[in-house]
Amino acid sequence: MISIDECRKSELQKTAVIACQGVEGAYSQMAANAIFSNPDITYMRTFDGVFRAVSQGLCQYGILPLENSSAGSVTAVYDLMKAHHFYIVQGVKVSISHVLLAKEKTDVRHINQVYTHEQAARQCSRFFDENQHIKIIECANTAVAAQLVAQSDRTDIAAIASENCASLYNLAVLSRNLQNSQNNFTRFICISKNCEIFDHSDKISLMLTLEHKVGALHETIKQFADLGLNLIKLESRPIADTDFEFMFYFDLQASVESRDVYHLLLALEKNTKNFSFLGNYREISA
Amino acid sequence: MISIDECRKSELQKTAVIACQGVEGAYSQMAANAIFSNPDITYMRTFDGVFRAVSQGLCQYGILPLENSSAGSVTAVYDLMKAHHFYIVQGVKVSISHVLLAKEKTDVRHINQVYTHEQAARQCSRFFDENQHIKIIECANTAVAAQLVAQSDRTDIAAIASENCASLYNLAVLSRNLQNSQNNFTRFICISKNCEIFDHSDKISLMLTLEHKVGALHETIKQFADLGLNLIKLESRPIADTDFEFMFYFDLQASVESRDVYHLLLALEKNTKNFSFLGNYREISA
Repeated sequence: MISIDECRKSELQKTAVIACQGVEGAYSQMAANAIFSNPDITYMRTFDGVFRAVSQGLCQYGILPLENSSAGSVTAVYDLMKAHHFYIVQGVKVSISHVLLAKEKTDVRHINQVYTHEQAARQCSRFFDENQHIKIIECANTAVAAQLVAQSDRTDIAAIASENCASLYNLAVLSRNLQNSQNNFTRFICISKNCEIFDHSDKISLMLTLEHKVGALHETIKQFADLGLNLIKLESRPIADTDFEFMFYFDLQASVESRDVYHLLLALEKNTKNFSFLGNYREISA
Repeated sequence: MISIDECRKSELQKTAVIACQGVEGAYSQMAANAIFSNPDITYMRTFDGVFRAVSQGLCQYGILPLENSSAGSVTAVYDLMKAHHFYIVQGVKVSISHVLLAKEKTDVRHINQVYTHEQAARQCSRFFDENQHIKIIECANTAVAAQLVAQSDRTDIAAIASENCASLYNLAVLSRNLQNSQNNFTRFICISKNCEIFDHSDKISLMLTLEHKVGALHETIKQFADLGLNLIKLESRPIADTDFEFMFYFDLQASVESRDVYHLLLALEKNTKNFSFLGNYREISA
């Protein structure tokens, strides 16, 4: 277990080198701008690249999307958590609004392929239901999708991305608010190589494996309830190469400043398989 | 709550009209063949179509994928559960092996687009990591992907689908076992409009909403643990148009034959918001 005193910091450094996935105009950039006053952003091709940039010390912090209010968890990021050593130092909730972007003079009726990210496609599933002839081309990121459309000479393609990609890639906005829900948020985390716990941190994230036996999950959750802690999120992900064994991810409304909470974490670390304390942090809204 | 006596059936009818999503060669077809000796399969374009075919009585049963051992839950199906009235009558676990299919004489080095389903793409993420130049074209289903490649004149495209799509669509197998994990399973459910509970049913699925308060999830799980019931799966999905409110899905190792279990279900129905008993069934392996 980490030593809390060593992790305690007064304030997040506001100027830093940040790893984001994608290219300029990605929603991760909006998250980075909400946390840092002067972020120097390095774009990585993959989520794995963001984790590696942070763990290898190339970037001080990394930004990753965790969950969307309509499409659900970004399971690829949850799965990568197992493979990397990192701490969450800040959360940020970003309001997401998707637009349809294409080259100037593109006729919306002629579009038959839309480039976007798989999660964005799910958030805009009604648009695709209503336009059955349009094929989805999956891209690593919505901003990458906008960039690909901008670089192409084709006039039958468009991208679903954020509106700031329009000016960035010189594209026209054909349609706004493409997402099914007008109350569409994505939660991002900011990760660091070292544990950093700032004042007013009220959220704790944990990761562990449970035995496949009666009451195993209940025993763990009971320990949280006994301390009066609110379990905000529980995510289970199958462990590859096993027959439906699961890794559990817990988000609790709690602080390690509480001695009870700290001792519970020590006990979990001692008694639980593959336990990881992922951080104690605060979530802001952008 | 349903009356258990009215649901009790001796044996699943082995000849029936079944709704599957996709086209011939879909993995759902393998699931249908594992359950029914002589299934008369009607293919629906979407998962929603399968739910509707069953609830409107067009088909007696429907087959839907729920979860893959490496890519995780099929969240689209979980989200549709909220919108439809149905019962799970049987589960089936199918071993999944993906192959790369293309027109005869296609040179594997010239492929720059692969048609497949989003979940299959995730199960084969290593293949795409190693072939960065290949774009993923998202299709409703792996068999639809194979069909599209078969119908196209292009020689730079391929599909990721099951091997039986090769003969079905007259395509060549360029590569086998494309999935990351050689231990790759998908769990399917068979749904019906009416509740049908067969002998030896040992799994119960439930769906409910919990209040956003300390211990709400714990209180529910405690009731399962108090009866010594094993919680096999817990899935939480955000409810659209809310700010991260969740719908919970529970799979329990239990039978409604037990009076204690039946009374617990009655109590949950009375005291819980949006409670649905989704069925008591057995899972077989294909």
